[in-house]
Amino acid sequence: MNSTDRYQHGLDKLMEYTLTENKEISTHLKISDDLKDIAPDVAKFIIEFGYGDIYSRSGLTNKQRAQITIASLVTQGTEPQLELHINTGLTAGLTPVEIVESFIQLIPYTGFPRILNALAVAKRVFAQRGVSAVSAAKEQ
Amino acid sequence: MNSTDRYQHGLDKLMEYTLTENKEISTHLKISDDLKDIAPDVAKFIIEFGYGDIYSRSGLTNKQRAQITIASLVTQGTEPQLELHINTGLTAGLTPVEIVESFIQLIPYTGFPRILNALAVAKRVFAQRGVSAVSAAKEQ
Amino acid sequence: MNSTDRYQHGLDKLMEYTLTENKEISTHLKISDDLKDIAPDVAKFIIEFGYGDIYSRSGLTNKQRAQITIASLVTQGTEPQLELHINTGLTAGLTPVEIVESFIQLIPYTGFPRILNALAVAKRVFAQRGVSAVSAAKEQ
Amino acid sequence: MNSTDRYQHGLDKLMEYTLTENKEISTHLKISDDLKDIAPDVAKFIIEFGYGDIYSRSGLTNKQRAQITIASLVTQGTEPQLELHINTGLTAGLTPVEIVESFIQLIPYTGFPRILNALAVAKRVFAQRGVSAVSAAKEQ
Amino acid sequence: MNSTDRYQHGLDKLMEYTLTENKEISTHLKISDDLKDIAPDVAKFIIEFGYGDIYSRSGLTNKQRAQITIASLVTQGTEPQLELHINTGLTAGLTPVEIVESFIQLIPYTGFPRILNALAVAKRVFAQRGVSAVSAAKEQ
Amino acid sequence: MNSTDRYQHGLDKLMEYTLTENKEISTHLKISDDLKDIAPDVAKFIIEFGYGDIYSRSGLTNKQRAQITIASLVTQGTEPQLELHINTGLTAGLTPVEIVESFIQLIPYTGFPRILNALAVAKRVFAQRGVSAVSAAKEQ
Repeated sequence: MNSTDRYQHGLDKLMEYTLTENKEISTHLKISDDLKDIAPDVAKFIIEFGYGDIYSRSGLTNKQRAQITIASLVTQGTEPQLELHINTGLTAGLTPVEIVESFIQLIPYTGFPRILNALAVAKRVFAQRGVSAVSAAKEQ
Repeated sequence: MNSTDRYQHGLDKLMEYTLTENKEISTHLKISDDLKDIAPDVAKFIIEFGYGDIYSRSGLTNKQRAQITIASLVTQGTEPQLELHINTGLTAGLTPVEIVESFIQLIPYTGFPRILNALAVAKRVFAQRGVSAVSAAKEQ
Repeated sequence: MNSTDRYQHGLDKLMEYTLTENKEISTHLKISDDLKDIAPDVAKFIIEFGYGDIYSRSGLTNKQRAQITIASLVTQGTEPQLELHINTGLTAGLTPVEIVESFIQLIPYTGFPRILNALAVAKRVFAQRGVSAVSAAKEQ
Repeated sequence: MNSTDRYQHGLDKLMEYTLTENKEISTHLKISDDLKDIAPDVAKFIIEFGYGDIYSRSGLTNKQRAQITIASLVTQGTEPQLELHINTGLTAGLTPVEIVESFIQLIPYTGFPRILNALAVAKRVFAQRGVSAVSAAKEQ
Repeated sequence: MNSTDRYQHGLDKLMEYTLTENKEISTHLKISDDLKDIAPDVAKFIIEFGYGDIYSRSGLTNKQRAQITIASLVTQGTEPQLELHINTGLTAGLTPVEIVESFIQLIPYTGFPRILNALAVAKRVFAQRGVSAVSAAKEQ
Repeated sequence: MNSTDRYQHGLDKLMEYTLTENKEISTHLKISDDLKDIAPDVAKFIIEFGYGDIYSRSGLTNKQRAQITIASLVTQGTEPQLELHINTGLTAGLTPVEIVESFIQLIPYTGFPRILNALAVAKRVFAQRGVSAVSAAKEQ
């Protein structure tokens, strides 16, 4: 596959995780826009390598890839990216309950601080997307 | 639920992730055994809180909980626990391909070093359990 | 001990670290309040497991437990929790000097950046509680 | 070397990384100022040990020391210090391109999140110093 | 204070944490010995800055400094240094129970993996020093 | 650039960091060999993305890229990869003194434990390559 194909392949895959009417596509576009004056190649690598080479692999569903990514970002405590990937996770089909339960599952492995900070981010994203956070709590 | 119930509940849940004929149950028993002279309550907390309170929740499948746990442990680089949870993940129904692909999915979020170290652990576990690692590679 | 007892036990212990007239109890109440729409069980786990099972153990004083907790949070750089536990530490009897010296003790083990960030948090908390930060510096 | 000499030696070295007409010297002065009411000895240790004992060693150029420091801070994600050391790095002679390329070099070792956050910090510093970020991108 | 004084001051303080008949002094001597062909100044910095400037401060007892250090090392998972500082902690007056309880106190803040690995290190050190690990467990 | 070109480009760049008569090329070959039964695509990504896309960029010398990489790996404490990159760093032109001084430069930013562990790795690599560690110490 040549470079143009990888980029297009990555962009197609990225679209599966995003929708024009929702926030996260604009977030991804905003990332590209923020990078264009300082490091445009990093935006290209995210599309080509991240979405073209990695996310495009078979073997896992989009939902699984989003959930694994969220688990890593909660563990690292990198909140701007966690916010983005809670958004892409919801678009990929994770329910708010699955996202909240993913955080709770990590308490024995990271302790409470990382999870409290992740829940604060999720609460903000759920509110922005008009997802009922109460229903997430109810199903628990 | 009283403390005895939580412990039993946790133990029942732990059994779903382990099988007497396989390695990981002996690993969990070995953890309890190692702890009994120094910190037996920690073994109790793992069963009661970890498996009784957290793993027993609804909202995610055992497979999802195992996969999230593995993602966090790869990110942290805590290898003895990663070895254990690759084992419990396989028992919970994750395929070797799903485990290997979970690692690969994390490359853009943790970089290569954590993933190379995780793959070395997985290779050892797959060999111990007689899981064909070649088939994992083939499906990719 | 049944679940209600563990919760009550945890709440009693939490009260030892907090006082209604001070900020940190409202912080803990704020945590519970923030969680009630998204993950109320996490607030319950903090009380039951954190304060009921762990903080309630014998073998260390409240002051020691607060100081150990602060050392871990400085090392991790999780600032919202560090702010909370500087507050609970002060209520548990740690002096501002002991808190500042705890940070300084960690310089050889974490480097300066974590300590500078922790000192900025402590300075804010000391000001909020009307604790004289100057006296802390003097005693050094 | 006595303590006064080490402090003076450290201060001289620090001056090589800073210029009165630029922002970073005021940042270092601001650090000292912020610390003087809570932990003035930490400011002294940064000058004496950091700049007097470590930065003053032979074997590496100032530029190399700045670049190594930046690589560690990007990896740790401690942003206030990264901001300071992008400033001192520029004064020590690193070009904006060298700083941006240092971040990009770390993608395979830390993943994208740390690098995106570091680029956002760099973009802010470059703007504050009136360094053309476009030229940095062009040279890539 | 001149450099010779700081070194001697640091060495005196280090002696308070170690005893010739026990393992940890030889460990510290071994560190100096290991470093002498590759980076002898690092051994000097540990004595001068670590023990001379930091450990020699007033405001905390030796026991408190050892306990804080252990909490940070458990959190970081740097096991060779944890082994050393469990040894110096015991010499500084921490009981095995206080060390084990310090680990348990951190479970809510770091999760179980770091604590299990720390307990394995402590068990090894307790055995080497002929400290009864059973009594540690009993007092819990 | 198509995929075959990126791979070849990456392989050419990797060769600049390695020499058949030395250890590190066999280490890189060993990584590929270890991965071929479990995750051969990861070896491909290291060559294509790591060496083809990142290391092949202009703007920094090979020596700078090696030194930045080492600084990140010391900070993370991922020792197998640190061992490899001390090797590639030496081949890329870093002197043993520059490597040891890079570690020492990081003491104020990571604390001593990471540096002591890194020095132990470097000492082993220097011995394997027959590099005189004494001369490294002398220049300091």
